[in-house]
This record gives sequence, structure tokens and C-alpha cells, in this order.
Amino acid sequence: MTYCVGLSLNRGLVFMSDTRTNAGVDNISVFKKMFTWQQRGERAIVLMTAGNLATTQAVVSLLDERSKAPGERHPTILEAPSMFQVARMVGETLREVVQGSSPSGQAADAAFSANIIVGGQIKGSEPRLFLVYPEGNFVEASADTPFFQVGETKYGRPILVRAYNPDMGFEDAIKLLLVSFDSTIKANLSVGLPLDYQIYERDTFELGPWGRIENNDRYFAEISEGWSEALRNAFHSLPNFTLDGR
Amino acid sequence: MTYCVGLSLNRGLVFMSDTRTNAGVDNISVFKKMFTWQQRGERAIVLMTAGNLATTQAVVSLLDERSKAPGERHPTILEAPSMFQVARMVGETLREVVQGSSPSGQAADAAFSANIIVGGQIKGSEPRLFLVYPEGNFVEASADTPFFQVGETKYGRPILVRAYNPDMGFEDAIKLLLVSFDSTIKANLSVGLPLDYQIYERDTFELGPWGRIENNDRYFAEISEGWSEALRNAFHSLPNFTLDGR
Repeated sequence: MTYCVGLSLNRGLVFMSDTRTNAGVDNISVFKKMFTWQQRGERAIVLMTAGNLATTQAVVSLLDERSKAPGERHPTILEAPSMFQVARMVGETLREVVQGSSPSGQAADAAFSANIIVGGQIKGSEPRLFLVYPEGNFVEASADTPFFQVGETKYGRPILVRAYNPDMGFEDAIKLLLVSFDSTIKANLSVGLPLDYQIYERDTFELGPWGRIENNDRYFAEISEGWSEALRNAFHSLPNFTLDGR
Repeated sequence: MTYCVGLSLNRGLVFMSDTRTNAGVDNISVFKKMFTWQQRGERAIVLMTAGNLATTQAVVSLLDERSKAPGERHPTILEAPSMFQVARMVGETLREVVQGSSPSGQAADAAFSANIIVGGQIKGSEPRLFLVYPEGNFVEASADTPFFQVGETKYGRPILVRAYNPDMGFEDAIKLLLVSFDSTIKANLSVGLPLDYQIYERDTFELGPWGRIENNDRYFAEISEGWSEALRNAFHSLPNFTLDGR
């Protein structure tokens, strides 16, 4: 499994992904699931993947090759005129790889399936965030649904829904994501540290701060331990249930 | 979908289930998923079901008929010598119904599948809590795993894991379950109010307080609203993430 979240804020975009891949529970590895491209002053793009690793690596390699070989730069995500066109290219590449993996021509064979979050900003338009489906189509985040999750989405969702605020700062957003990832990691063995994060600040047109939360990260340990205590306190702060009078 | 939780405490057992059943999202109904049997002073048994409604109703009807018709009371859950034997009867009845539903003889056809939580106490032994699988086998709760969830288990799990305490009282346990159910109801349309609860106090050998949390329950509304606020406060009480020095 995997857990990735892309968050749209008023100040920009924040991305976080875990790095655990598994084939069963007895074969786990560390693979990066977050990939970035930029042309400083003009565009910055972040992409995160969940699903079949062969599929997602092939998609990223194809996008990457096409953005590097000058002769084949049409179409490339470094030349696409808008984030919408970037999402379309990602979707087409994903569909191509998924279809190519199933010789019978079956379009949505789960075994080769993958989901992708892609976001960023290109000069001349707003920052945008998309969720791309294995069939190649995609949806865009909006004020009503300002974040996308892929992979093991359920355990970490309640805190995102309740504590997200479009005005929050980048550091608060990373703290929120770490709480969400901690709940997921505690419940699903197939999601694990280290965690990668990437910030994109609106209208900078270059990638912002990024980093990796390693296994021994002291701040993550504080969050993980502190959250148990904080949740228990939150629970006790609620009014008590009484059986009398029911 | 469904959400049911059985909780084992030092003081006894607590059960909670939702009442929503659905065939798609355009066909929802209210059905009780919690069933009880007792012989005052001798035994009390609570059973909760998740899965195919035809299957679970057939299982409960069979268990019920056998416990009522005196001529056919062997075997019946009102005469089983232990909770282990009760769980075995539930498992056998469940397997029988699931197998009978698939004429091809396929044993674990998902479409007819169901999971059952059964717990209670019979004079001469401790309170016990079991999770019964559609194949008819079952596992028992222990100090390490003191509760079972069936149905939509993921959204409501983090708070159970963090705030459960074997020494907690019944009223606190119901409050905890309501928080867990609220997180689930907020995230999955196929889990819904009203909620049924049942308490069994250790060594009483009769069913304890029970009740239904209706759609307009004022306490549930307080919990639901209060929890958003409490979670946000819990989140802000954690140490802040800083990008500097990373």
C-alpha cells in the first residue's frame, strides 16, 4: 500500500508521501513516490503515485524522458501550456502504461492499476491540484474538496477533515499531515517511514522547501507520542454520557 | 455497509451497532443489527451482524427458532455449556446459510458473506467476546486485542486504539464508541443513525442497560460538534513543526 496527500492552501500546495512498497507483508522496500519538475520562474510540478510500482515507475520515466530529450519534447510536461494539460499528459501516460501491461487489452486490470496526484503552477494561471485515475481521466481540487489522498486513505482522513483550514501556514500543514500519516502508519503495516514532503509557495514558480522525515526523526516521535495524549485529553474534554434519564 | 463494535472491559462488555443497510446508495433502510438472548441469572448473549442482510437475518432467525421451539432445543445457544460453544453454533449456522445461498457450492462467495460479533457470559465462566468469520471459524478478544469491529472499521479505529482503557466505565465506553461512530458516519454514507447500544455488566448474568441513539439525539449532536473543536485543540496543543534547521 501507500499513503500520499496533496493539500491545496491559500498560500500554495503541500505534498507528503510515504516510501514503503510491499509485495505481501514479507517483501517490503523503500521507494520514492514523489517526483518533481521545475523551470525556475516559469513552472513547478509535483507528482505522487500510489499503486503498482512497475506502472508508476514507468509513468514517471516516460514523463521524465520526454521532458529531457529535446527532440521529443512535444508533448512534455515542461512545455504544456497549463496544469490542465499536464494532468492530461499524466493521465494519457498512465492509461498507456496500464493498457500496455495487460496483453489481453483489458483496460482497468486492478493488478496494474495506479492513482496519481499531480499539482503545481504554470505562469499565467493559479496553482492547481489534480487526482488522476488509472483510466486516464482526472478531477481537480476545489474549495469544497481542497485535498486529495491516495492509497490507504481512511485512517488518516478524520483529522484532515476536521483540522484542515485553507488559511493555515505551510508548517502547520506539515504538522497536520504528520498527524494524519501517524494514524495511518499505526494502523496499516504497509505504510511506513521515511516520509517525503514538498512545499510549493503560490506565485514563486519554483519548488519550495522539501525534506524527508526519517525513521529516527525526533519531531515525528514527539507528534506520535503527543497525539495519543492529546486525543485522550480531547476525548475527556467532551461532555459525559449518562445512562440516567435515557 | 455497517459499523459494529464490541468492547471488552474489566467491568463487562459494551456493544454498539448502526442500523443502516444499503443496496447501492439509492436504496437505504433501517434494520436492527443487534440481537440479544438471556436467561436471567444464568446467561446473557449479545450478537451483532455485518454483511449480507439476507444472510444475517437467516442466521439470527435460525438461532432464535432453535432457542424457542422446545423440541428442537438441541443444540441451542440457550443451552450451550459455554460461550465458546455459542460462538461455534453461530459459526456453524453462518457457514450453513452462506453455503446454502450459493447453489454452486462455493464456500465463501463474497456476495452472501457476513461477519458476526458475539459476546456474553454463561454462569461458571468469564465474559467472553468473539468475532465469527463467514467461513464459520472465529477468534476471541484478549487483553492485547480487547475489541472487535466489523463493517466500515477504518475511520473509527484510531480513536478506539488511543483512548480505550480496560478500566474505563460503561458510560465512558459509550462516549468513546459514539466518537468512533461519529468519525465513521461523517466519512461513509452507508453507516448511519440511529445507533443501538447494549451493556453487559460482569457476573450479573442478565442484560444491562440498552438504548437507541436517534437521529435527533441531543447528546450525540454535542459529541459530534464538540469533537471537531476538541480535535482542533488537540492538534494545536502539539509542538509546532519548523522548517528552519531541517
